[in-house]
Amino acid sequence: MANIYLLRHGKVDGPAALYGHTNVTVTPQENQLIVEKLGQYLQDKNIQIEQVISSPLIRCLLLSEQIAADQNIGQIKQDTALKEMNFGRFDGTPFDDVHQDKDIWSQLEKFWQNPVQHSLPEAELLTGFSYRVVQAWQNILSQVNNDQGDILVVSHGGVIRMILAHLLNIDFRNPNWYTQLAIGYASLTHIKLTESGARVKHIGKPLVEDSDRVYLQSGLKADHKESA
Amino acid sequence: MANIYLLRHGKVDGPAALYGHTNVTVTPQENQLIVEKLGQYLQDKNIQIEQVISSPLIRCLLLSEQIAADQNIGQIKQDTALKEMNFGRFDGTPFDDVHQDKDIWSQLEKFWQNPVQHSLPEAELLTGFSYRVVQAWQNILSQVNNDQGDILVVSHGGVIRMILAHLLNIDFRNPNWYTQLAIGYASLTHIKLTESGARVKHIGKPLVEDSDRVYLQSGLKADHKESA
Repeated sequence: MANIYLLRHGKVDGPAALYGHTNVTVTPQENQLIVEKLGQYLQDKNIQIEQVISSPLIRCLLLSEQIAADQNIGQIKQDTALKEMNFGRFDGTPFDDVHQDKDIWSQLEKFWQNPVQHSLPEAELLTGFSYRVVQAWQNILSQVNNDQGDILVVSHGGVIRMILAHLLNIDFRNPNWYTQLAIGYASLTHIKLTESGARVKHIGKPLVEDSDRVYLQSGLKADHKESA
Repeated sequence: MANIYLLRHGKVDGPAALYGHTNVTVTPQENQLIVEKLGQYLQDKNIQIEQVISSPLIRCLLLSEQIAADQNIGQIKQDTALKEMNFGRFDGTPFDDVHQDKDIWSQLEKFWQNPVQHSLPEAELLTGFSYRVVQAWQNILSQVNNDQGDILVVSHGGVIRMILAHLLNIDFRNPNWYTQLAIGYASLTHIKLTESGARVKHIGKPLVEDSDRVYLQSGLKADHKESA
């Protein structure tokens, strides 16, 4: 039976912000480190990746291309439905630019605490985000060829969390699913397809350590993994 | 802030069965391998374990003792509330002894598919199990001393899954939480205590590979990780 590995992109190389649809880069060094750690992991476990499916956002796409080159995979597939949630007006705005604006900061804080109850201005709704991610997941499943190797999906924290909610039949409106579950940068989540459906083997296994947390100047903790 | 690591015991050395309160051993070789892999992991990440809290069942307790010796921890604490669920009349009965009894087998299969809807004869109810595990978790939290090192809890698949359901506010009656989420043998789940509560950093990270699955002679797949 096939396996699907969900890899979150590496730590982003930009000011702390809520990065959704906004492009932000990951340093080539970070990407290279992830490629090496992933290569080691695949080798140790004798895993043959047959396909790479990627979010088209640059923090995923460049990594996907490097992985494909490293693993001798001819072509990667891009799926726009694997993009991170669109956070609307504040998407990509550095926290340092807004954290003194109590109104904006309060909106962001409420969103973090409960993204369904407190949607952001001009942002994608969580319901719509869930719908498109589940569609993306169905598309991935349709690519599975059990005679061939496994699939690597390179995507975002929100997307991986939404796929997991779908597989485990967890209500994606549950705030704790966002606030209390980390999907770290450069972490790997393993899903095995079995006769009784998709089985989650591990969640958020870090490939690269200590690359998942940034702190704001204000002292407030911003957790990129929640938002990018 | 303190970290709590939940370690599931290793692959059991007994016939495939639903092991709950029944004692079953793990080979000394398997335990030794886990001790080594865990030691490596702790060293790589510079983690200092201050306390080991263990289920008193032998498949956890012997491992805990070996870890304590390896990590120079004076004494381990046992908590009976960290025992696996009591599966009642069929607890510890080898599947090979009953799989030809269609009635018993059907009860077991229904239980696997939906443990709330189909409780087993003389077994602990999932509600009561949840209650005692949450109590055990509260006891663990009360042991946390932020000035000191981290805590290792050695316990069972069902217990770890129940702690996670509690932390993530997931309905423990959700059958998919049991059927679709693996907590592999010798896997490590990392919980970081932060100001905003317990944050799950990774789930089911395997320390020892390929030790989590057994197959029945009948060809039916029995997954110890669901039951022990």
